[in-house]
Amino acid sequence: MANQFVKEIADINQDFPQWYTDVVKKTELVDYGPVKGTMVIRPYGYGIWENIQRELDARFKATGHKNVYFPLLIPISLLQKEAEHVEGFAPEVALVTKGGSEELAEPLVVRPTSETIFCSMFSKWIESYRDLPYKYNQWANVMRWEKTTRPFLRTSEFLWQEGHTVHATKEEAEKETIDMLYLYRDFAREVLALPVYVGQKSEKEKFAGALATFGMEAMMKDGKSLQAGTTHNFADKFSRAYDIKFLDKDGVLKYAWQTSWGVSTRLIGALIMAHGDQRGLVLPPKVAPIQVVIVPIASKKPGVLEACQKVMQQLQEKGIRTHLDDSDQSPGWKFNQWEMKGVPLRLELGPRDIENNVAVIAERCDNQKHTVSLDDLDKTIAELLDKTHENMYNKALEFRNEHTRICHNMEEIEQALNENCFAKVVWDVDAKCEALVKEKFQATVRVMLKEEQPFQETCSICGHKCENPVVTLIARAY
Amino acid sequence: MANQFVKEIADINQDFPQWYTDVVKKTELVDYGPVKGTMVIRPYGYGIWENIQRELDARFKATGHKNVYFPLLIPISLLQKEAEHVEGFAPEVALVTKGGSEELAEPLVVRPTSETIFCSMFSKWIESYRDLPYKYNQWANVMRWEKTTRPFLRTSEFLWQEGHTVHATKEEAEKETIDMLYLYRDFAREVLALPVYVGQKSEKEKFAGALATFGMEAMMKDGKSLQAGTTHNFADKFSRAYDIKFLDKDGVLKYAWQTSWGVSTRLIGALIMAHGDQRGLVLPPKVAPIQVVIVPIASKKPGVLEACQKVMQQLQEKGIRTHLDDSDQSPGWKFNQWEMKGVPLRLELGPRDIENNVAVIAERCDNQKHTVSLDDLDKTIAELLDKTHENMYNKALEFRNEHTRICHNMEEIEQALNENCFAKVVWDVDAKCEALVKEKFQATVRVMLKEEQPFQETCSICGHKCENPVVTLIARAY
Repeated sequence: MANQFVKEIADINQDFPQWYTDVVKKTELVDYGPVKGTMVIRPYGYGIWENIQRELDARFKATGHKNVYFPLLIPISLLQKEAEHVEGFAPEVALVTKGGSEELAEPLVVRPTSETIFCSMFSKWIESYRDLPYKYNQWANVMRWEKTTRPFLRTSEFLWQEGHTVHATKEEAEKETIDMLYLYRDFAREVLALPVYVGQKSEKEKFAGALATFGMEAMMKDGKSLQAGTTHNFADKFSRAYDIKFLDKDGVLKYAWQTSWGVSTRLIGALIMAHGDQRGLVLPPKVAPIQVVIVPIASKKPGVLEACQKVMQQLQEKGIRTHLDDSDQSPGWKFNQWEMKGVPLRLELGPRDIENNVAVIAERCDNQKHTVSLDDLDKTIAELLDKTHENMYNKALEFRNEHTRICHNMEEIEQALNENCFAKVVWDVDAKCEALVKEKFQATVRVMLKEEQPFQETCSICGHKCENPVVTLIARAY
Repeated sequence: MANQFVKEIADINQDFPQWYTDVVKKTELVDYGPVKGTMVIRPYGYGIWENIQRELDARFKATGHKNVYFPLLIPISLLQKEAEHVEGFAPEVALVTKGGSEELAEPLVVRPTSETIFCSMFSKWIESYRDLPYKYNQWANVMRWEKTTRPFLRTSEFLWQEGHTVHATKEEAEKETIDMLYLYRDFAREVLALPVYVGQKSEKEKFAGALATFGMEAMMKDGKSLQAGTTHNFADKFSRAYDIKFLDKDGVLKYAWQTSWGVSTRLIGALIMAHGDQRGLVLPPKVAPIQVVIVPIASKKPGVLEACQKVMQQLQEKGIRTHLDDSDQSPGWKFNQWEMKGVPLRLELGPRDIENNVAVIAERCDNQKHTVSLDDLDKTIAELLDKTHENMYNKALEFRNEHTRICHNMEEIEQALNENCFAKVVWDVDAKCEALVKEKFQATVRVMLKEEQPFQETCSICGHKCENPVVTLIARAY
């Protein structure tokens, strides 16, 4: 019985991709939609997204951002105004060519991202420095016609938030780009229990049309990197292409400075692959749709279900997301089921427990069991949820540290990557070296860690003395 | 000064459509997008939608519904499985025919509504009576290629929620259809301060593919009706078309019973046209993005801004959405600006008020002014917000009652409609009479009020004795 669910999940060490697919499907996070490359997000998966949204949205609002909604369809001519941007996105757009049974005069792009349409309105709205800054965000669906897709990680349609801001000075835009990067990093740490590397992207990896892109990269359990969020400093590149000018304090008409930044349902994929184990999901308490599942023991004995219901109500009143599994399956079946679904805490309550005014709590993250008093149960649970969060973060951090190697040369880079590690290198920000690593190892520059002190003077890739040595993370990536 | 904004808004009695357009644009709720028929929802408009979402979503969850997200794109072949449904929606769909620079083998419909794609997954997931009911909802964008569009009321893309449920019995589906209709009605009453007529739609006005559609209709200030929400009982029509079967308790394989229901950003249009006046918006406190605006008087005098900030903090801590207008405009300009924007309460605070430990509060809804103590201000404000809500509801109800006429015959129907009233008639549920009213008066059957006692035996339209007399509302509609 104990292995019923585990057997259905591929071995996490032998076949990580299949393990991922098994977990997302069997825990009913997601299913494949009727159109290739699309996903249906089921209640258990969408519940995680709602918690992510609520937590992030509060942080956006606390930093002065306002939500808006811009149209899904963008005239193709509008997309084409910024040359690099269209070059980056045109090959992967979906086009609406018919509306109301008629051929459209101009094809419309289903937004792959919304810089161009935000810019068209900013250009119309902004007149004076008094109007600035504009700090907007939208929660929306976007579409990119991808050839190879996997639920949450890469799908033709996905859900995300995209921030779009306009500033009167270059410095303010730079600050916003970094502030939002750190907001994402703190969110990953505090809500997803996810340690991330943050830093600037290389020219090759930056967003199409940006002056500079910054990213946060999380390590998955197969040692690959997942780009979990990005922020872009556009400087005045889009404002020149879309004619966004404002009359400054000094009476001079100037181009505005812009940023954008986003995270998506990909974060759910990150959670799964950073925290999951052979038994299935391990969900961080802050985003788990169910934080505590109550499993009655000998549930037909008088008083057991009533006691479970009372506990559920008590916890729910304190805002703890609690589910009572009163189905007619056996306790053992339920244990496995809810472990697979990654519920942080399981509370067992049987006749003897009730007699003794206690319950048994099992932690999903580290398998510990506690017998606790029913008095002040909500406090005990809240503490255990906090503990789980910290444990999960520390485990992920320890794993990441163990799997990040300082590499002085190509041999060490190769070894690190082959042993499923991130390679921390010194790089001279030379595109040729970046290309070499890609060609030889199918690995890419993830982020530059500019604040770290270079550990050698030579480039770890080509061995030449660096003019501008930067500590850089190289990894295979999703 | 007092008339600066009012002058910019067309006369509400002379040109209601222009009044509407002026109000939505000048209060910055919305702007036109670059594609004809689309809208950009700006922060002030989106703030209203967020409040609507939060209040409705809590009610959905409290009644056991779960949120999901289904793909935007639907294969055209999937749409075509239910004959009436495709006939209703095919003429107004947008089609994606290219993806990633390639022509698609099958065109994809941008969802006009999602019954078909939900059904395709229900068919895959549902096996046993144990799986039922499915009570799902999604918040999403949808697209209908409309010829004539107006912000919030009818746009090619709009935001909405769509509930989709599956049940084991016909009775359960019927109950869900009515339960959700009443949930919408109570929401309109309790959150939007909007009285609505609820009842069944005629065969002609029902949703394409439904067995029965129920709607709520709200009266706008021009005497027209606005359909503000609908619920549909599909019986087993879709489950037969999409093969949704379950093994029932008795061991027999049966078709499932379904419903769907939705409200949209149209509700924002309803609010504007039901509550607005010559000075602009009048927003119900429960959904107003700003509930209290603080206007400092003699703001350069020492201590004034500090006192305003203190009041703002105090109110915000109690969850009251408060904005301090510390811009350098005059108080008179600010009064007009925030009146136009429909903020329920304005709080004025000047040096003398501070000395006397009081503030002046002006109610937007009925223009009353009060001098109130700064002690317990949050309680006073909360009471005034509740009072505003009740006042707004009562005003709208009174207006609606004054503009609903009992009509015994065609002359009275004509007169009622020409005097911008709803015509309450007795109808024999005969499509010929419905067609006649449409042809003669461009008016439609809005809802049947089946629980009301017929006030005569003959049909108000054709004068014949009714076999099945039903009290029915006829009106011109948006």
